[in-house]
Amino acid sequence: MEMIEIGRRAKAASKRLARAGATQKNAALLAIADGLMACQDDILRANAQDVENAKARSVEAYFIDRLTLTPQRLQSMANDVRAVAALPDPIGEHFDHRTLPNGLRLHKRRIPLGVLGVIYEARPNVTTDVAALALKSGNAVILRGGSDNIHSNTALTRVIHDALDRAGLPADAVQLIADTDRARILELLRLNDYVDLIIPRGGEGLHRFCREHSTIPVITGGMGINHIYVDETADQEKAVEVVFNAKVSKPTVCNALGTLLVQRSIAAEFLPKVAVRLAEKNVELRCDERAMAILTQDAGRRTQNHSCVLRRASPEDWDTEWLSLVLGVKVVDSLDEAIAFIRAHTMEHSDGICSRDPQAIERFLNEIDSSAVFVNASTRFNDGGQFGLGAEVAISTQRVHARGPMGLRELTSYKWVCEGDGHVRW
Amino acid sequence: MEMIEIGRRAKAASKRLARAGATQKNAALLAIADGLMACQDDILRANAQDVENAKARSVEAYFIDRLTLTPQRLQSMANDVRAVAALPDPIGEHFDHRTLPNGLRLHKRRIPLGVLGVIYEARPNVTTDVAALALKSGNAVILRGGSDNIHSNTALTRVIHDALDRAGLPADAVQLIADTDRARILELLRLNDYVDLIIPRGGEGLHRFCREHSTIPVITGGMGINHIYVDETADQEKAVEVVFNAKVSKPTVCNALGTLLVQRSIAAEFLPKVAVRLAEKNVELRCDERAMAILTQDAGRRTQNHSCVLRRASPEDWDTEWLSLVLGVKVVDSLDEAIAFIRAHTMEHSDGICSRDPQAIERFLNEIDSSAVFVNASTRFNDGGQFGLGAEVAISTQRVHARGPMGLRELTSYKWVCEGDGHVRW
Repeated sequence: MEMIEIGRRAKAASKRLARAGATQKNAALLAIADGLMACQDDILRANAQDVENAKARSVEAYFIDRLTLTPQRLQSMANDVRAVAALPDPIGEHFDHRTLPNGLRLHKRRIPLGVLGVIYEARPNVTTDVAALALKSGNAVILRGGSDNIHSNTALTRVIHDALDRAGLPADAVQLIADTDRARILELLRLNDYVDLIIPRGGEGLHRFCREHSTIPVITGGMGINHIYVDETADQEKAVEVVFNAKVSKPTVCNALGTLLVQRSIAAEFLPKVAVRLAEKNVELRCDERAMAILTQDAGRRTQNHSCVLRRASPEDWDTEWLSLVLGVKVVDSLDEAIAFIRAHTMEHSDGICSRDPQAIERFLNEIDSSAVFVNASTRFNDGGQFGLGAEVAISTQRVHARGPMGLRELTSYKWVCEGDGHVRW
Repeated sequence: MEMIEIGRRAKAASKRLARAGATQKNAALLAIADGLMACQDDILRANAQDVENAKARSVEAYFIDRLTLTPQRLQSMANDVRAVAALPDPIGEHFDHRTLPNGLRLHKRRIPLGVLGVIYEARPNVTTDVAALALKSGNAVILRGGSDNIHSNTALTRVIHDALDRAGLPADAVQLIADTDRARILELLRLNDYVDLIIPRGGEGLHRFCREHSTIPVITGGMGINHIYVDETADQEKAVEVVFNAKVSKPTVCNALGTLLVQRSIAAEFLPKVAVRLAEKNVELRCDERAMAILTQDAGRRTQNHSCVLRRASPEDWDTEWLSLVLGVKVVDSLDEAIAFIRAHTMEHSDGICSRDPQAIERFLNEIDSSAVFVNASTRFNDGGQFGLGAEVAISTQRVHARGPMGLRELTSYKWVCEGDGHVRW
């Protein structure tokens, strides 16, 4: 199908979806969840073909893992869709009521954005997650999944279409670009007459491509060079666990820790403790000069070798998103130096402080403007599910529209309603 | 100066401005207001040169009028800046507090967008309006005014720089591109490393150009094909005044009325009344067949000729933004037809209904999704000042970020703050 026709159909479907009530939208979501179970065999067969093709291209093991569906993963995808159905419907909410001095009554009503364009790579669960969030928030969506996933996504979209049909909603509300030609992305990015927001989910290259070529607003996010600063007042045992969790619990994601900053006055005490803990997962430390001195001296003292791999950090390391078990480590003199360093190197995703000093915490919270700023907590909490949004389509690090995890409300807009009694303005 | 250097300076200034308190920002605004009065002679002299140049190019009278500054207009600009100083500071506001089941404490804090790029034509008051709103909301701004205004804008920017300097804020917080080369706009649109939001203020051509070429999010708005639907239950005397006000009070602006829809059952009664009123301002009516029949018959009955100029509407007329004393007039059978017609032709700026039927009103409010929807009130109220925002940088008709009048809050973003006690996520 021509892209412009896909856009036209999405726009038409979005108008119907915008008026659909919660009952009908939830019926569609529950039918998707049921369909994932009922059509399990078809989906797994299609997925097996994607996996086989990927293996034939001998891609890396983690990639195969992300791609592979299992009955358990399908079950979990179905549960995620059911969880979205259980969330309150954001559409139609009335808010910001006010009566003006002239008697005009104002309020706002929440409406959908319209049509979303979501461009993503691997991970078939994104297809159902995004479809569920889009439908619940009254938006139509055009999905452009990775070519590695084309069979899985086609099978999943069949389930979604069937569910929409059962619920009496237009199948065009969720369209998959079932064509792996990259030129289609370019066409999608220029459908500004039909598409209201582009959400890329992928690496820096994809984001840059979208920014460069899109005539539609693009959400930037999903990448992070994240810091935790441990100051001299911190509860060191808790700080070790926060740093350990932020680095190792899922190192391939955008809210994982990138660089640890430690205040000089406690560095000789704290760094060996955290290094021992990180060594359990064979984390490689890229150290500045002072951290290196402390850690090599400490390693020399140990009889058993349970320290991390230590390497001297290069200047580029501070601007690298590791996505692996590597951690930058730097000793700083003060909160001032920590703030200045973070502001110079953060991608404004997730940065935190471990401290028991209320003044230091408050300064950190005011002067670090990342999408989420943490106090004595792991950066891994920057997530729609964790923040109670139910789910998320993306984590935005830009300032326009939404910031941080984007759940249902972040997929909406509003209109002003102004009621009078023959009011005129001269 | 190179554009990239302008961007760099704006970004640096925005970091300082983001931390400035209300007292300091207000001091800058009041100094701008005082400066407009103190430097009145310089400003008027610069403006006279712009006016002279424009006259030499023999542009239209309304254009000269928009361009021309007078002591009264300067006074009014100063008052507008003082009004912004009197508004509450949105930055630093804490909101959406929540404690999660695991004990994590969440809230959001309001932060500036960063750097705004505002591209506008004529009207020197935009320079001080936008600068005041940007500064108060903690944003730096790069202004690209029209070439017709270059001397006025340069004089106004001098006043602003002097005021920033007095208040101890960086002069780079407000930079004027003092170069009328249009290529500079293109460079500005691609400064995505430094500029967070582009706000074009001008016609469809400027908006399309920005959308096409910008790698930065662009606000679309400031254009309207606006409708009022008068149904059979309406208070006709009030409806006549609402329509008259919406059409004639300022026909050159984006919230002026474009098309009047009248329910068939009252058309023969209502149309002559509204035509007589509109004739006072010589409004030209572009009528559909039914409206034409009613109005020509009515005109034939009158002994005194006080009807409007009547012309048959062409199909394009329903999609034309008049910006003048022309009004489309159409008879519709029902609310359904009115809603369908509006949805087909509106630019989603301002649409309204005159009715006393609560069910019709509620359907209209739910099914028309324009940035502001009016009940028994003039579309001319879609305005930041009228809606109590104090002022506005633009009226957005898009759904991403802000919709309708954009005041101080619409120039902000937020960060999430998440406070724990050693919380980790596995």
